[in-house]
Amino acid sequence: MPTLSADYLRSIVSSIFMAVGTPRDEADVLAEHLVKANLYGHDSHGVIRIPYYLSVIEGGRFLKPGAKIKIVKETISTAIIDGNHNFGQITGRKAMEVAIKKAKSTGIGMVTLFNVFHTGRVGEYSEMALEHDMVGIVFGGGGMSRQVVAPTGLTRLLGTNPIAISVPTYEEKPFRLDMATSIVAGGKISWYLSEGKRVPEGWILDSDGNPTTDPSDFRPPFKDLGASIGTNTPIEKRGSLLPFGDYKGWNLGLFIQLMGSYLAESGRGQKGGFIFIAIDISKFRPVEEFKRRVDQQIRTIKASKKRPGVQEILIAGDPESYSYNKKIKEGIYIGDKPWKEIMEIAKSLGVDIKSN
Amino acid sequence: MPTLSADYLRSIVSSIFMAVGTPRDEADVLAEHLVKANLYGHDSHGVIRIPYYLSVIEGGRFLKPGAKIKIVKETISTAIIDGNHNFGQITGRKAMEVAIKKAKSTGIGMVTLFNVFHTGRVGEYSEMALEHDMVGIVFGGGGMSRQVVAPTGLTRLLGTNPIAISVPTYEEKPFRLDMATSIVAGGKISWYLSEGKRVPEGWILDSDGNPTTDPSDFRPPFKDLGASIGTNTPIEKRGSLLPFGDYKGWNLGLFIQLMGSYLAESGRGQKGGFIFIAIDISKFRPVEEFKRRVDQQIRTIKASKKRPGVQEILIAGDPESYSYNKKIKEGIYIGDKPWKEIMEIAKSLGVDIKSN
Repeated sequence: MPTLSADYLRSIVSSIFMAVGTPRDEADVLAEHLVKANLYGHDSHGVIRIPYYLSVIEGGRFLKPGAKIKIVKETISTAIIDGNHNFGQITGRKAMEVAIKKAKSTGIGMVTLFNVFHTGRVGEYSEMALEHDMVGIVFGGGGMSRQVVAPTGLTRLLGTNPIAISVPTYEEKPFRLDMATSIVAGGKISWYLSEGKRVPEGWILDSDGNPTTDPSDFRPPFKDLGASIGTNTPIEKRGSLLPFGDYKGWNLGLFIQLMGSYLAESGRGQKGGFIFIAIDISKFRPVEEFKRRVDQQIRTIKASKKRPGVQEILIAGDPESYSYNKKIKEGIYIGDKPWKEIMEIAKSLGVDIKSN
Repeated sequence: MPTLSADYLRSIVSSIFMAVGTPRDEADVLAEHLVKANLYGHDSHGVIRIPYYLSVIEGGRFLKPGAKIKIVKETISTAIIDGNHNFGQITGRKAMEVAIKKAKSTGIGMVTLFNVFHTGRVGEYSEMALEHDMVGIVFGGGGMSRQVVAPTGLTRLLGTNPIAISVPTYEEKPFRLDMATSIVAGGKISWYLSEGKRVPEGWILDSDGNPTTDPSDFRPPFKDLGASIGTNTPIEKRGSLLPFGDYKGWNLGLFIQLMGSYLAESGRGQKGGFIFIAIDISKFRPVEEFKRRVDQQIRTIKASKKRPGVQEILIAGDPESYSYNKKIKEGIYIGDKPWKEIMEIAKSLGVDIKSN
């Protein structure tokens, strides 16, 4: 049961990605991103993903370390970016940077990103808007891994199609929503699988549409996660994730799929794409006034009456902040199985593993 | 149990609003809007609202027929509009028109609207984008009528803060999502009340935070709906609406409240505001290709396996289309009580009521 410091983890992760041809600056961004996901309590989007990423790099088609990112077309407020199969964590940052730059000029910037691989924790990109006193919105839709069933259906139709939204504050913690439009992110099921645990009721259906709590009913074991962009588990043999919020949540997920698959991507080959939007608050209201009023709204919520047994009414971003503070102090726990895998990969790549 | 034709209803509605000082063209827009809400099956947002609107006009503060709408500030992609307390249906249309114009130039347009009264069915404005081959997005947030409780709270904190999103198609019916971020729109509770019916379980809590199905536990009788912008029912004596989609849906609703109350509005006096966004598809992808692929996605969903007993997997906008087709043929049913009220108003204003 290894418990590791963020610094140690970052150095290992960075070294692993450099060993497979990632430039140092991009490997550092990746390490920062993955370890931050662990710190924020989203282990499913953290270093556990390394074996999967490396298996896809080996495949040579969908993930190409160091590949050059290109702006294909732009207006004063918009841009289309070809991620060229570099890491989603690198291309996602680039796309949001461009959206922020556009918003500085016209008040709102929107960037679509195609040829994009898994971007990790989507909240990362919307949060980039905060230090610019902007609202950040990110949609990721479609992709080859269709997982989410309609409330009245039986088969996988949608990706987990996440939404991330960040709103800056003055003194309070910023509002940072980062959510799948499925009941949980697909990666959470993989995490339960890697830990050998059952998932809570109401999350998944088996391939016949029956409720189940066995994560292996949902998709192949985590080591074979590459299969979800490959061919070796037929779609009709996999279970499905339920949408969040019934009919409403499912339709929001469908909207994001339309945006990702057809506005950002070409819709060929079930590729997924991303949308990045930045909104410059100063073009609409005085920034300090806006941020102070958001603070006030948050304080009103925190001070309001709670249900019996509830300590605090949580706002989007709170769980991540609490997890971060805890893990910076106590270290990051990685399960035995995934850690062993990561260590094996590191050794096989000749990465120098210093002690924790 | 009067069943009325759309044409007849429109002429009555238009005459009533002209009789209280609304210019003919704006009264016609209002009539078109309210009757379309009935046709679409959203009776809670239809002509049932007339007595409420008239009582607010009488109050003289929040609703001023014919008031002049002003663009306060703009960039090439954004605008701030002062609705000046004209009808939300008039100012909402104007705001979306400006957003569409901006999007034509730069690919994305965003307009905020303040001093805005109830806009009726929010889907109306996002749907305006469709004929321009644009995606339309509308948020309405905040407002004096806080109704929605946090999943872990006991008191009203948020408005019903609706989202409307429209995406154009080639031959299929367009995607038209129009949803409150509460479990249902607040107006639905008023409709149950006006019909003397109990609401389904899981919609509302009473003022002590206990689940209830009695709509009068939620707020004062519909005739007194004006109270929700007035003072005569203390907030602590009212029940609350549950959010849709638990923690995720509640946080989406909070985001929309932050946008409406503080980005569009000044945040003074708990006013609500609206955000209108138009996205020009042609700036990102070939329009026909995009629309044909959305068609294909819709067909894939419609052809997919359904749960036992399910006839069709519905997509946002389908229920409205089915209701429209039915009511154009069969007429619009209005409850005895609200119709009597509307007739009394019409008579008191000297409106010439021709036969149906």
